[in-house]
Amino acid sequence: MESLEDGLEERRRYVRIRDALAQRIAGGEWRAHDKLPSVRQLAAQYEVNRLTAYKACRLLQTDGWIYAKEKSGYYVSGDEPAPESAAAPPDAPEGLRVSGRLRNEMFDIQGIPVAYQFSQALIDPNLLPNLYMSEYVKRVFDLYPKLIGTYATAQGDEELREALAGRMSADMRDDLRRDDLLITTGAQQAIDLISRTFLRSRDAILIERPTYSAAIAIFRHQGVRMLPVDIRPDGYDLAQVEALMRVHRPRLFYMNPTFHNPTGYTVPTAQRKRLVELAERYRCLLVEDDAFREMYFEEPPPPPLFAYDTEGWVVYLRSYSKYVAPGLRICAVAGHRTAIAPLVTAKSLADNGTPLVNQKIFLHYLLSERMRQHVEKLRTALQIRRDIMEEELCATGWQWTTPRGGLNLWLRTNEDLEVEALLRESLRQSLSFVPGAICDPFGGSASHIRLSYAFANESLVREGVRRLAAIARTI
Amino acid sequence: MESLEDGLEERRRYVRIRDALAQRIAGGEWRAHDKLPSVRQLAAQYEVNRLTAYKACRLLQTDGWIYAKEKSGYYVSGDEPAPESAAAPPDAPEGLRVSGRLRNEMFDIQGIPVAYQFSQALIDPNLLPNLYMSEYVKRVFDLYPKLIGTYATAQGDEELREALAGRMSADMRDDLRRDDLLITTGAQQAIDLISRTFLRSRDAILIERPTYSAAIAIFRHQGVRMLPVDIRPDGYDLAQVEALMRVHRPRLFYMNPTFHNPTGYTVPTAQRKRLVELAERYRCLLVEDDAFREMYFEEPPPPPLFAYDTEGWVVYLRSYSKYVAPGLRICAVAGHRTAIAPLVTAKSLADNGTPLVNQKIFLHYLLSERMRQHVEKLRTALQIRRDIMEEELCATGWQWTTPRGGLNLWLRTNEDLEVEALLRESLRQSLSFVPGAICDPFGGSASHIRLSYAFANESLVREGVRRLAAIARTI
Repeated sequence: MESLEDGLEERRRYVRIRDALAQRIAGGEWRAHDKLPSVRQLAAQYEVNRLTAYKACRLLQTDGWIYAKEKSGYYVSGDEPAPESAAAPPDAPEGLRVSGRLRNEMFDIQGIPVAYQFSQALIDPNLLPNLYMSEYVKRVFDLYPKLIGTYATAQGDEELREALAGRMSADMRDDLRRDDLLITTGAQQAIDLISRTFLRSRDAILIERPTYSAAIAIFRHQGVRMLPVDIRPDGYDLAQVEALMRVHRPRLFYMNPTFHNPTGYTVPTAQRKRLVELAERYRCLLVEDDAFREMYFEEPPPPPLFAYDTEGWVVYLRSYSKYVAPGLRICAVAGHRTAIAPLVTAKSLADNGTPLVNQKIFLHYLLSERMRQHVEKLRTALQIRRDIMEEELCATGWQWTTPRGGLNLWLRTNEDLEVEALLRESLRQSLSFVPGAICDPFGGSASHIRLSYAFANESLVREGVRRLAAIARTI
Repeated sequence: MESLEDGLEERRRYVRIRDALAQRIAGGEWRAHDKLPSVRQLAAQYEVNRLTAYKACRLLQTDGWIYAKEKSGYYVSGDEPAPESAAAPPDAPEGLRVSGRLRNEMFDIQGIPVAYQFSQALIDPNLLPNLYMSEYVKRVFDLYPKLIGTYATAQGDEELREALAGRMSADMRDDLRRDDLLITTGAQQAIDLISRTFLRSRDAILIERPTYSAAIAIFRHQGVRMLPVDIRPDGYDLAQVEALMRVHRPRLFYMNPTFHNPTGYTVPTAQRKRLVELAERYRCLLVEDDAFREMYFEEPPPPPLFAYDTEGWVVYLRSYSKYVAPGLRICAVAGHRTAIAPLVTAKSLADNGTPLVNQKIFLHYLLSERMRQHVEKLRTALQIRRDIMEEELCATGWQWTTPRGGLNLWLRTNEDLEVEALLRESLRQSLSFVPGAICDPFGGSASHIRLSYAFANESLVREGVRRLAAIARTI
């Protein structure tokens, strides 16, 4: 536990300095290729030790704001790529060197076993059709006796792609063919492949603030410059989006416009159409992550942006297995061949194909009547848990917008509540949640938390939120 | 078919120029940061068109020999990182840009369906225990009814890691614990994770010549500078290895020292011990890919290098599923925590864990008596196929060293045989093999081919080699 606490404390310090420096750069205090004050001077300015100032600079460097010249210092990045070399860190260990900023904070928190699990945006395994699935598995092995001995192709099983293309054609676009699809091991692998295929370090990209923390970690490891697009209950500020596209020419915009993680917000139809136009105009690939489409509570969400794409500027990620068989890890990536062809090659390098076993099992369940029934029941179960969570949260005085789908509540806590202290004490009392800062690529959202109502059962949701509210009162 | 032929033709031209230029650089004709002749001048020197000369330069750049300055030209790389920017290619397409050198040539050839399949180094599915496996699968689903609804951890299932650590401890090192292991989706993913975790573009690495083509593609995509270590029937030239380590300080040495792919050679014990000492001394991580250890024909191979590693400079990749259940894609990565910990984080970013279903199915088969029996039978079956292939190859006059394990024969063809023409005609006659150049990171091995005897059955091996020999006589 101690290393997590220490890490959060320290992170708070250097993230604050990073943010301050980023604002000064954005505000024009220094221009491209101007030298920044030395780490020693920055430490003095912000009244921290040099290691903390150094870490703030490293963060800025990783995000592409600045670059380092050996034995000289840090300089503000221009639009052209800058040299990759970094000033030697004061605490560089001898021996094996890890490249890039390899960190996955969500993974650190979710790795801690707790009784009240509100940090994992996963469906409670008790809500999944486990027994039915086992039957399907046995049937699949009777159907394909050599399944276990057969490699998949890199692009994915033809039968599965055919079935998914048919389903997607019915739902959103009538022109989809199986060759327009790539099967990946979960949506996260799809994001990772896209990042590696279309991005170079220091490229600019757009990313929602807040967003899916694993995506932040993936893009940060790639060393790109992330530019924030705020998401609100009514969608984006399209003037902001267009200005960012015009000025920074971002390579892509990673978005989750339907029952957005972590906020639950949904971007309205008019914005969807306009975004596709902007993408074409500014040649910015829209990466539309659509993991929660079927998890709606009142009415189905608007069609995906992908439905309006005619020129191939949307890549669509549909994690189909999330709410039926998460253990199988099946995601479909759909797009124009200019995007899919290089992604298939990247997939062939990354793992040469998602295991065929998983694809065949999923295929047979996907085509079943039980699948449809299961999804309907699941919606009801999740809605009940959401309602219970909201009911109990009334005692806290925190603020939120009721999500109409998805797995999470995004809460604005009271101003004076120290979210890190709340997490520390919650973990001690066997309860976990996601601090907003982890979902914010720019170290903001410090007064927010994400609670998932999908993993814990009804009574655990009720007791857990009561416990959380009680902890909040004591700190 | 046409695009493959054209690609091979063109590749031959620019690879030849790349090799010639690399030799001139290595020979000292130009020094670090000297400007190369312009693409126009090179095209004139080598009597090719400018696009071909340009592609040769791009290859040199990708391999780290040279770097580009915008609107100026190409310069010879120094030891320090060089700017990443490249001269705009003359044929750059408008629109979506793919980063790095994304190419997987083996994938292009193996994607073509043929009757005589000698290009895939895979076990014939008919030799695998498919029906038994299906029974295990059903049992596993009875044992873990919620399996399909459960995510794996990023590091891999504890029960499986425990079992593998026990087995590895018995086989090679008595100090292995489950925390020293990471489960990946096949060895290829392990290589990819290692490349992304420990390498930056333009780092130097050592790689065998010839080697596993997917590894070449992975390292090339990462943009590292590959330095060749020749592998011969009696192992490496250790004086060459030490000189390369001393001069270039490579970050890692990717090796496959046991029943090496593609040659089948095995590095002797004395060299194994000495290599571990060199790795420690020069702080060069040895990445030991050990996919074929159990596929021996006469006697078991010497212990892996990993058995002699005390300081944590060997990462050991053991693709356990290859010859029992390739459809499951299970590889174990073993190493010191300084290597395993960042690899687990990289895995958490790449796909957040190999599907649990696959790990549990494999675990239960691994622990069975049938597994041991299966491996013994498989050895016999493969040895018979190897013998048939060798028998039929006598008619060709080609040369090879009889492999004592593994799945492949590495053949030196007659000098005047154009291997690309042989492949072209073979594919037309429904037979595929791997041209040696694809296994050579330096465009050499042009008079070699790799034939796998593991995928086609006995009669197909016999007929196929006869057909290949007949084709060779006609061209």
